[in-house]
Amino acid sequence: MHLAASGLHMMVEVRTLGWMKKNMDPFGKLIYAPETASGEAISKVESHTPKITAPDTVTAGKPFEVRITVGPHPNTVEHSIRRIEIYLYEESRPFNPVFLTAVNLVPVYCEPDIKLNLKLNKGGTIYTVEYCNLHGLWEGRKAIRVT
Amino acid sequence: MHLAASGLHMMVEVRTLGWMKKNMDPFGKLIYAPETASGEAISKVESHTPKITAPDTVTAGKPFEVRITVGPHPNTVEHSIRRIEIYLYEESRPFNPVFLTAVNLVPVYCEPDIKLNLKLNKGGTIYTVEYCNLHGLWEGRKAIRVT
Amino acid sequence: MHLAASGLHMMVEVRTLGWMKKNMDPFGKLIYAPETASGEAISKVESHTPKITAPDTVTAGKPFEVRITVGPHPNTVEHSIRRIEIYLYEESRPFNPVFLTAVNLVPVYCEPDIKLNLKLNKGGTIYTVEYCNLHGLWEGRKAIRVT
Amino acid sequence: MHLAASGLHMMVEVRTLGWMKKNMDPFGKLIYAPETASGEAISKVESHTPKITAPDTVTAGKPFEVRITVGPHPNTVEHSIRRIEIYLYEESRPFNPVFLTAVNLVPVYCEPDIKLNLKLNKGGTIYTVEYCNLHGLWEGRKAIRVT
Repeated sequence: MHLAASGLHMMVEVRTLGWMKKNMDPFGKLIYAPETASGEAISKVESHTPKITAPDTVTAGKPFEVRITVGPHPNTVEHSIRRIEIYLYEESRPFNPVFLTAVNLVPVYCEPDIKLNLKLNKGGTIYTVEYCNLHGLWEGRKAIRVT
Repeated sequence: MHLAASGLHMMVEVRTLGWMKKNMDPFGKLIYAPETASGEAISKVESHTPKITAPDTVTAGKPFEVRITVGPHPNTVEHSIRRIEIYLYEESRPFNPVFLTAVNLVPVYCEPDIKLNLKLNKGGTIYTVEYCNLHGLWEGRKAIRVT
Repeated sequence: MHLAASGLHMMVEVRTLGWMKKNMDPFGKLIYAPETASGEAISKVESHTPKITAPDTVTAGKPFEVRITVGPHPNTVEHSIRRIEIYLYEESRPFNPVFLTAVNLVPVYCEPDIKLNLKLNKGGTIYTVEYCNLHGLWEGRKAIRVT
Repeated sequence: MHLAASGLHMMVEVRTLGWMKKNMDPFGKLIYAPETASGEAISKVESHTPKITAPDTVTAGKPFEVRITVGPHPNTVEHSIRRIEIYLYEESRPFNPVFLTAVNLVPVYCEPDIKLNLKLNKGGTIYTVEYCNLHGLWEGRKAIRVT
């Protein structure tokens, strides 16, 4: 009985350690990207990966429009895209990224389709991360050259 | 001397009370609107009042674009439009408003010119409040009918 | 019949105008405060007015804790406190307020009870505005002296 | 001359491709963690990794305090901690994480030291990501058991 209890205890510990290990992944591993999605997540790639529409090349210091869309995706109190964040990986900057914006999207009223006017002085990569209340964080990215 | 000190003390108290009274206005009184701006603020009405571009009439449940712009306004680390919030006063709702979104605008990179896709089921008034780090909160509003 | 139709049309117009007038109030009028709440809102004053706990007097440049609480209030997907914003009306500043923070509170997981460390160089009034998804915006305020 | 120009062109292309490759890393790779920081970032680990103070074990559905601190770190308009986000990796949830909160911190006024009251029904890992305007995104994490 002592041994059985001890064995059970060991099993629980091992299971917990396995979970803890997976659970303690760096945060970045929790963000889904099309090339890294696996298992269940593969079926969500198309409906959750944010699309970035912006020029390939822009002029330094001149505003240009960036559009971020997600979906088609449901927009209900139970399931919707709740947030879109935008960051910039700026060429030759010692540390990256630069936080550009976070946009809250209230269910039912706000569609995951936003347009911002950005201004770059150096080229880099626009990253956007969207949050779905059921399916987590998904990223999109687009390189932009500055002339 | 005793009287003089006491008089000074009274003056300070009176000044403080006057300031406190003004300072303790309801928060809503701190939000500038074109029709309520006075004194120094009048010169800021044109550069700070957010403009809302949206249809006068929309179809229930069908997304439409709302554009919010501010300015022309500087966009520097020292002085820029830092945030835009959007609310809805919805017809026949017992309590209003409904919070729709808050958008952070990082200086230099983000212009105060955003477009969102909203969906209404009832008519009402779109309110937008922008924040300038030097000149405070300014509002704009636009009624929208739903058919 | 023509007259009747016309009368009905007039009635609708008048009702719409009445609604539009009320609906087009400055945004500040939509923020509930204990002294301005009326009608239905009176029953919500106790459960919705944010309470600010902070020292009456602080030292310039030295961090101090500000606690904002709302409630007791439900915390469900259907009804909860969703956001808390904090602003400062700073003494002798030409334009006010200063935006200090906006905190998102996700239903079920986040209670409307937050503590921030602020640092003031001049006295003023801390304003906090909370948003309840059913009952709108409610404010609290507290004057703080700086020595 | 033609060959030289072509060689230069090739060098530029190669440099650009190298940069693009690095630049197009998944977003998660841009978030610094103590165990992954390398090069220049190593010297920033201590001043930038957010610390989470919370109980190791909590009771299901009962609020508990989570404190997030960063630093000691400068708090100026030029260099400060601008945002703190909190997410939950929840045990046995099909997709993770759950977004819990995003807190804006305005330079000079707001210290990177916040306390929230959270409520969990299942165990998991609290992740926090802070943003420094000069040194990017840094994460901290802490497992919490629920009984």
